[in-house]
Amino acid sequence: MTKVAGSATARAHSNIAFVKYWGNRDQGLRLPANASISMNLADLHTTTAVEWNSGLDADTLTINGAIANETARMRVENHLDTLRARFETDRFARVDSRNNFPMGTGIASSASAFAALTTAACAALNTTVSERELSILSRLGSGSAARSIPPGFVEWHAGDSHETSYAETFAPADHWKLVDLIAIVSREHKRIGSSAGHETASSSIFQPARVASAAERIASVKTAIVGRDFESFAETVEADSNLMHAVMMTSKPPLFYWEPLSLAIMEGVRRWRQDDKLMVCYTLDAGPNVHCICADGDADAVAIRLRDLCGEIDILRSGVGRGAHVLPTD
Amino acid sequence: MTKVAGSATARAHSNIAFVKYWGNRDQGLRLPANASISMNLADLHTTTAVEWNSGLDADTLTINGAIANETARMRVENHLDTLRARFETDRFARVDSRNNFPMGTGIASSASAFAALTTAACAALNTTVSERELSILSRLGSGSAARSIPPGFVEWHAGDSHETSYAETFAPADHWKLVDLIAIVSREHKRIGSSAGHETASSSIFQPARVASAAERIASVKTAIVGRDFESFAETVEADSNLMHAVMMTSKPPLFYWEPLSLAIMEGVRRWRQDDKLMVCYTLDAGPNVHCICADGDADAVAIRLRDLCGEIDILRSGVGRGAHVLPTD
Repeated sequence: MTKVAGSATARAHSNIAFVKYWGNRDQGLRLPANASISMNLADLHTTTAVEWNSGLDADTLTINGAIANETARMRVENHLDTLRARFETDRFARVDSRNNFPMGTGIASSASAFAALTTAACAALNTTVSERELSILSRLGSGSAARSIPPGFVEWHAGDSHETSYAETFAPADHWKLVDLIAIVSREHKRIGSSAGHETASSSIFQPARVASAAERIASVKTAIVGRDFESFAETVEADSNLMHAVMMTSKPPLFYWEPLSLAIMEGVRRWRQDDKLMVCYTLDAGPNVHCICADGDADAVAIRLRDLCGEIDILRSGVGRGAHVLPTD
Repeated sequence: MTKVAGSATARAHSNIAFVKYWGNRDQGLRLPANASISMNLADLHTTTAVEWNSGLDADTLTINGAIANETARMRVENHLDTLRARFETDRFARVDSRNNFPMGTGIASSASAFAALTTAACAALNTTVSERELSILSRLGSGSAARSIPPGFVEWHAGDSHETSYAETFAPADHWKLVDLIAIVSREHKRIGSSAGHETASSSIFQPARVASAAERIASVKTAIVGRDFESFAETVEADSNLMHAVMMTSKPPLFYWEPLSLAIMEGVRRWRQDDKLMVCYTLDAGPNVHCICADGDADAVAIRLRDLCGEIDILRSGVGRGAHVLPTD
């Protein structure tokens, strides 16, 4: 195994939030309005190779083998500028990023993408960077990327400054065998992306109450996860998702991410839990896809019901994932 | 035209709220948490005959020709008890109530029912009761019945006491030719009725902000109606409906009244207004049916689109209605 100086490859996983991040107290630093909780998704990941190369006169970016569009390249270049300033280098980078999950499914790739990019870029500089600093640096690229750095079940501390806003593990990946079944309700591109959406959060008269009560839900979900108490977990996770979407729908202008099928699945999930006694609950990010979080033993039964309810839609499945990590070089 | 002493028949119209009533500051007196705005619906009404009869040893109630169930009879009896106390009579009453709109369509009948009952019962006592007192008395039977007493476009002042919580007209019925197209999404009986729902309102962390900001929406909708400014009207009416449903969905336990088709119609209405420049907006009460409020000239175009979107559902149609009134005896 030979290490090529100046290059490294890292992998980071997507994550699904149980207490949501919506709105920033500082837009530029991506300091979130409230703390959030998530788990990494083992089976959805981004693998990114970074090569700092003194022969380049600009950063280059390929995504899934194709040259990225200018919007994506600029966002990566901005992030690399941050890393260049932090680690005092003036070299440009060649970045190659690949997702193992289909593009355009509405599954957020920015979390895994910026966590993998940051981890690979730092490793390629041969610097020693703590998990905490990797989380902080990833946050600057995409808020929820902070949560894709540590393994397993993660809390992103809101913090009150750049240095204090980072994520850390509170339970390892093997602590509780949860499964995320993601019903792909729509492959359409989001009309309003998360970054723009965060800016609208404060236009809802409900956002202050959501933010003020987040600490209570953080404590409740952590306790439920640590104690593997599915009933309590389900109640708070669904309530938190409803609170975020209520804020979205009451923003100016209102943001409606739910589609009719999303609503039908949410209703189904509540019924399957109450009537069929299945351990399943729902949560939705800034899109129409429904994440059905199941206890491992009930995931197959939930998948069958999802298929009955939805017909021929895609359903992705993932267990709990590890943190961002550098891959061995060939 | 001979007047039979001790009996009278009155008619009252259903109403649709543009700024919603949800939650009480006093449950017993039905003093609402916030003021509300509505218009009466000309084509949806209840006609009620009341006969105070010294030969009866209990109140009797028929609805649409059939003997009413005990729950309905008790609610009417309670209301008649209030009227007996107020007007110092100990006679019982024979009550016959008929709706001209189909039962079980999720169209609230309690507003028109208690407004018609109160109006007929007072007329049958040969007392002179002001519109204001009729509104106050009707409120005790069903909160929104207060709004079915005055004609046209109505504001229900929240008030801070029994005497100060009543509705009055701020624009006559012929001021603005609005049409309500009601898409009957479901005929199922509401799982949680309005009266029980009002009690859950305070369990949402969002209710205080909704209530605190209601005065602003009241002012905005009144100004829009008085100035016949459909764009401004539509924005506030939809926002207010979204706010109420956000409170419902974040109550404990959460109340979801929207069905998948409700969501599809709401999305359609926004699109027809924005892309097709039709004057239409939506509002939903505590049920899945969607009230599409249209400018008169655009109602046919909206009805066609509703039909295309929804297939073979019922669509009720109504213009702006008059207030509760005593009908001439045969």
